[in-house]
Amino acid sequence: MPPRMIYTGIRVKNMDESIRFYTEILGMKLLEREQTPQTQGEVATLKSPGSEQEIELNWYAQGSRFGTPYTNGSEVDHLGFDVDDLDEWVRELEKKGVKALLRIREIGGWNEAFIEDPNGIWIEFLQRK
Amino acid sequence: MPPRMIYTGIRVKNMDESIRFYTEILGMKLLEREQTPQTQGEVATLKSPGSEQEIELNWYAQGSRFGTPYTNGSEVDHLGFDVDDLDEWVRELEKKGVKALLRIREIGGWNEAFIEDPNGIWIEFLQRK
Repeated sequence: MPPRMIYTGIRVKNMDESIRFYTEILGMKLLEREQTPQTQGEVATLKSPGSEQEIELNWYAQGSRFGTPYTNGSEVDHLGFDVDDLDEWVRELEKKGVKALLRIREIGGWNEAFIEDPNGIWIEFLQRK
Repeated sequence: MPPRMIYTGIRVKNMDESIRFYTEILGMKLLEREQTPQTQGEVATLKSPGSEQEIELNWYAQGSRFGTPYTNGSEVDHLGFDVDDLDEWVRELEKKGVKALLRIREIGGWNEAFIEDPNGIWIEFLQRK
């Protein structure tokens, strides 16, 4: 049996702020949040309603062997989210004070918008026709 | 309806080498691979058998506006994979010439091993009891 991918673990600068973003702004559900004394950190797992994709937010205290300075690299290109009505969703985001950074209409037949999470990770919203 | 997370998009340095790693070493299935003239790049989508998690590999040609130098940052902590028998899986990896970098026994009740993908992204295998 080959391994089964079960989540994407991203690292966050501030756990409370990141959970707030993924739940209040993106409407994800917090499945679990726990201290991890082994890494001197905290772990939280989230999922969108109607999706099986899970993300794990990882936070490490200063002094943890994993608590190196947070640097924005290229490894994450973006996290992809599907929406029913992109224009309506962008208006909802704006009401919450989140501005879409980029709109690409009809690239590859997809209607897309991008925002950044509190860690600088790009989030793509796309409306599939 | 809140947005539904549908994949994690990671950026890769070499598309062929990365697809080979995720299919031949990790046993994932290649769902789609296509040129994206809009970004002067290529996109490939993969999924593990028995899992709904999808990853999208993104590659950009030099000269693309997205083709900035590849830098390993902190945004991806790791990608998480579940295995039935970790010792057996680590032996299978070794047969394929892939060495586990780190074994953490019984951290949080999980039996874990880590490797790196060709882009320097950490991959975690865990056997849940």
